[in-house]
Amino acid sequence: MNQTPSPSPTARPVVPPGPRRGLGVGELVLDGGFWGALQETNARATFRHCLDWMERLGWLANFDRTAAGTTGPDRPGWQFSDSEVYKLLEALAWELGRTGDPDVEKMFSAVVDRVAAAQDDDGYLNTCFGGPGQPGRYTDLPAGHELYCTGHLLQAAVARARTSGPDDRLVDVARRAADQVCAEFGAARDEGLRPGAGICGHPEIEVALAELGRALGEPRYTEQARLFVERRGHGTLAPIALLSPAYFQDDVPVRDADVWRGHAVRALYLAAGAVDVAVDTGDDVLLDAVERQWTRSVERRTYVTGGMGSRHQDEGFGDDWELPPDRAYCETCAGVASVMVSWRLLLATGDVRYADLIERTLYNVVATSPRADGRAFFYANPLQQREPGADVRPDEVNPRAEGGARAPWFDVSCCPTNVARTLASWHTYAAFVDDTDGAATVTLAQYASGDVRVAVGAGELALRVDTTYPTAGTVRVTVLEVPDRPVTLRVRVPGWAGGATLATPSGGPTARPVPPGWAEVPGALAAGDAVVLDLPVEPRLSWPDPRVDAARGTVAVERGPLVLCLESVDLPAGVALDEVRVDPAAGVRPHGDGALVRARRIPLPDDGTGAPPFASGPPSAPWRDDDGAPAELELPLVPYHRWAERGPSAMRVLVPIASPAPPVQNLSKETP
Amino acid sequence: MNQTPSPSPTARPVVPPGPRRGLGVGELVLDGGFWGALQETNARATFRHCLDWMERLGWLANFDRTAAGTTGPDRPGWQFSDSEVYKLLEALAWELGRTGDPDVEKMFSAVVDRVAAAQDDDGYLNTCFGGPGQPGRYTDLPAGHELYCTGHLLQAAVARARTSGPDDRLVDVARRAADQVCAEFGAARDEGLRPGAGICGHPEIEVALAELGRALGEPRYTEQARLFVERRGHGTLAPIALLSPAYFQDDVPVRDADVWRGHAVRALYLAAGAVDVAVDTGDDVLLDAVERQWTRSVERRTYVTGGMGSRHQDEGFGDDWELPPDRAYCETCAGVASVMVSWRLLLATGDVRYADLIERTLYNVVATSPRADGRAFFYANPLQQREPGADVRPDEVNPRAEGGARAPWFDVSCCPTNVARTLASWHTYAAFVDDTDGAATVTLAQYASGDVRVAVGAGELALRVDTTYPTAGTVRVTVLEVPDRPVTLRVRVPGWAGGATLATPSGGPTARPVPPGWAEVPGALAAGDAVVLDLPVEPRLSWPDPRVDAARGTVAVERGPLVLCLESVDLPAGVALDEVRVDPAAGVRPHGDGALVRARRIPLPDDGTGAPPFASGPPSAPWRDDDGAPAELELPLVPYHRWAERGPSAMRVLVPIASPAPPVQNLSKETP
Repeated sequence: MNQTPSPSPTARPVVPPGPRRGLGVGELVLDGGFWGALQETNARATFRHCLDWMERLGWLANFDRTAAGTTGPDRPGWQFSDSEVYKLLEALAWELGRTGDPDVEKMFSAVVDRVAAAQDDDGYLNTCFGGPGQPGRYTDLPAGHELYCTGHLLQAAVARARTSGPDDRLVDVARRAADQVCAEFGAARDEGLRPGAGICGHPEIEVALAELGRALGEPRYTEQARLFVERRGHGTLAPIALLSPAYFQDDVPVRDADVWRGHAVRALYLAAGAVDVAVDTGDDVLLDAVERQWTRSVERRTYVTGGMGSRHQDEGFGDDWELPPDRAYCETCAGVASVMVSWRLLLATGDVRYADLIERTLYNVVATSPRADGRAFFYANPLQQREPGADVRPDEVNPRAEGGARAPWFDVSCCPTNVARTLASWHTYAAFVDDTDGAATVTLAQYASGDVRVAVGAGELALRVDTTYPTAGTVRVTVLEVPDRPVTLRVRVPGWAGGATLATPSGGPTARPVPPGWAEVPGALAAGDAVVLDLPVEPRLSWPDPRVDAARGTVAVERGPLVLCLESVDLPAGVALDEVRVDPAAGVRPHGDGALVRARRIPLPDDGTGAPPFASGPPSAPWRDDDGAPAELELPLVPYHRWAERGPSAMRVLVPIASPAPPVQNLSKETP
Repeated sequence: MNQTPSPSPTARPVVPPGPRRGLGVGELVLDGGFWGALQETNARATFRHCLDWMERLGWLANFDRTAAGTTGPDRPGWQFSDSEVYKLLEALAWELGRTGDPDVEKMFSAVVDRVAAAQDDDGYLNTCFGGPGQPGRYTDLPAGHELYCTGHLLQAAVARARTSGPDDRLVDVARRAADQVCAEFGAARDEGLRPGAGICGHPEIEVALAELGRALGEPRYTEQARLFVERRGHGTLAPIALLSPAYFQDDVPVRDADVWRGHAVRALYLAAGAVDVAVDTGDDVLLDAVERQWTRSVERRTYVTGGMGSRHQDEGFGDDWELPPDRAYCETCAGVASVMVSWRLLLATGDVRYADLIERTLYNVVATSPRADGRAFFYANPLQQREPGADVRPDEVNPRAEGGARAPWFDVSCCPTNVARTLASWHTYAAFVDDTDGAATVTLAQYASGDVRVAVGAGELALRVDTTYPTAGTVRVTVLEVPDRPVTLRVRVPGWAGGATLATPSGGPTARPVPPGWAEVPGALAAGDAVVLDLPVEPRLSWPDPRVDAARGTVAVERGPLVLCLESVDLPAGVALDEVRVDPAAGVRPHGDGALVRARRIPLPDDGTGAPPFASGPPSAPWRDDDGAPAELELPLVPYHRWAERGPSAMRVLVPIASPAPPVQNLSKETP
């Protein structure tokens, strides 16, 4: 029953009951550009790359062995390796909705066959538990990742249902798996609940059940998601080693928490599921709680790149203001999860700040992970690399998420497939439709060249978007076709874009200034209308809040939505990265997709004192400048998302400044 | 055969074959003062505190159960809990040498009885392996800590042998345990060595065997220590989870390494053992290697407190210049181990820099751990506490080393007993004797009031030292009695003590300036001679090396050997620690054992922008000052070793400065 998919134009990743919905995979077709190119590389290289690695490591064969009953304690891979197969299936499903490529369909069907064969009669499906010589089902909820894996299976099925309809083999597999979860973990379980028996150590099943419930119109799944969200935060999970209950967000109930803490990906997947549950059940208290957590976490625990996670110890959030650039974890998967949360809050509330963070995170975390060829990835995304990383051999499994070089695969390899599924569905996040009682509004939230055909009522709004964003800041929107009912168009002016202008049909020849936020085109759209948004993408300096101790005395340079960085490969001979001090007073000039800054070379003190690196003596001591290397420099900064593409390099996003000091605080944040 | 100890005046912790030796426990008697008071609290409170906790948790009963053959898989405590019992025995042994207190003798004998009863006939002694229902002997060398525990048993016996002679029950137990180790891990083992079969994951046996070999004149033990040192660094230990071989220094042989890396306590115990082996075998290449590692590690991987360890993830060293104040680990045990290494290098080379680091580490790491009452301890010693820590309940076992409050005991509780054994033997590190071919030199390396009686040849040199150091910087040394042969006296001028003076008999009434280093009193000593050393202990500013990114834009304040800190409990009402910016130009004034600094209050920006904590806009933006709280402040800084003694408090050692910026580098390090 594997039919060839016929992409539904209204197919879309998340359809909350509220007035706003995202784009279906068929409603925007990109033609090249920043994200179009990443989608092509994703399709041309990354899918096969991931498939080959999982075949090589036996993660796919685990399904065959489970189907054949020949698995056992020697099963290769971590307990969560099934989820990588599912995330690839999700990516392939989105890609099929985007292109209908028959080769992708073959790959998809072949994997689905092997997965489906491993499912037990009662719907349980996991290659690490319940088989001969393996631990029993659900015997290790804190660390076993069973429901986490099931969740990713469900999300793959949601993508399939959205792109080829619910009458599908993978959807059936997911439905049976979800039914088994409901039977095992339903409300009855709450009577005499064993400690930790009611939830999974790694959230994911929550958001997956909610999405599947929406996709299939099955309220039981939504209710099960709600149960999982509500059960969490009561300290019922047995601790793992020295990790605290906050590690898996079992310390405080979601509706009571003020900030994200513990393992970042877990915290964010849970938050995404909580938003879905809150929206689907009309639980405004729960929705407010997640918005509250988003606000404090973004303002105090998020890097300028949008990256989240300050600690390697538990892959987790740090305390407020704890944002070390060198030990930044900023896991790629946390970036993916952050986009999932912000997208849901955007649809739930319409608040532009969520679209701003999505843009920051997509360009500077998600786009940073894959190498240009789509065959190597960053797991962690630090903002500083002191020593150039060693090149990674193409056949090497990277044990961990460090090293300053993208790796083809990881022992824990959650990031490559997460990038793949996000890129394949990127265009569905680019706009949303608000369609209530006859008054429809289409809002462009992210910018890329392409053709938009949005279903509005019985008709369609067709738009042509032309832009080279983010290289240039001009976005031209031409109205090709309008439906019968009136449609209003809104575009996003990012928080960083002070001085933006918008030219509209009614505005005549002169463009009007538009402040950050949603900019509405006055009046109903008519065919032939042309709208031109001009966003100032000149490079700019960004100063850290004085409470970010690890960034004191430094400045970041941003250009449009891109965070820039300084790489050692761009330094003149004889100049070390640690010697560079930028002169903020000299400003910053455009330079390709990056910028040029003026800087001084400050030769560093010698070692050899035999004391810790602290010096007594007057602060007025002069610079030393005792050799031939240049003292005045003009240095290029490049987009952070492309760092380490020119060989191992030392790198800084936060570049130290020469005195005078920056303001210890600055009142004009991004939104006036 | 437990005789009452008769302290031998020449008893001493480490006696290398070289010309220099440390003091015996009987050769210096402190009377009060900074360290005398800590020794009294140690004796009065800490010994019993540790014993009661180990009794309560069953760590002592583990020996009884092993002796009775009733132990099993339910054995309480970590696999290394035996070592805490041995470290307490070592502390008790030193204390007996110091005071001969019969109550301490009773405590010591009672524990030795229980330990001795658990030893197998062949000398093997461990309560976690080899018993009924337990894993077999040496089946988990990477993580089992068996040889680590044996090492601490041996070090306890060394203290006993040094203070009451080798004819002792504990010494016999240790001798048999050491013989079993030599039989099991001797050179024969190197043929067809199983991976990881030749060394323990946690170094300690190396230094212990070397010391026992010296104490008992048994070269087999020294040779076994040499074998363990040489076997390490070849990647033979099976990896633990995601930790790299560097975690237990199995990545590079000791003689080839350039810097300390991985788990700090492991790296330092190994280095201490390597110095002992190098000295005992005349291996100058090995000694040079450890000196090379010391130099780079101190200059690039050591905090201003002397603390070592920048990462919680692996309790380990970070990269060069990675010294975050908030996430500083600076484990108390690493401070103890650092003193062990520097002490050995001091005796081996006579280089004053090792004595300088010992002082810095003793005052600012070792003395920081115990609470004033000796019944709670810091495990980690961070240089910044953002939020006041929660008070720890007196009956609570702290799961981990964090929280900003001293804890009575830890799940992993290596630090309290390590502090106890170090304080009990502190005075043996205060001076050393260089006695070669008739020319004897006595060098005072650390300062405390007390009576010194040093054996020189057949006679004794008797000195009286009077000082309130570090409160005041005057150290008066009076010569009471001299031996037949000429004796020269040297005193240490610490690296921080620019402007020190020394008054000597031959110098007449006027004191002469003495630069940092060893200051020698001219001529041979005569009874009645008086020497007065004046060290400038006025508070001073210390500037971080520009490569220490996490300290940029801050300054530390030191006073003599004490690092100072700013605690929130000392701030005026309405002023938050994050708002304080010190004015380095206004200097720093003495204030008790601390200092007073001038500072400005810079109110912080509001949150609520919904963006990460980076602000665009001009760096010239003005301070905001919009409320009634004082803007100009004079704030007291207190010794870091006493922080959090007045209730939970936020704290900073590195205090942000108001603009203008500090020098990005400064040429005058501590030694001119």
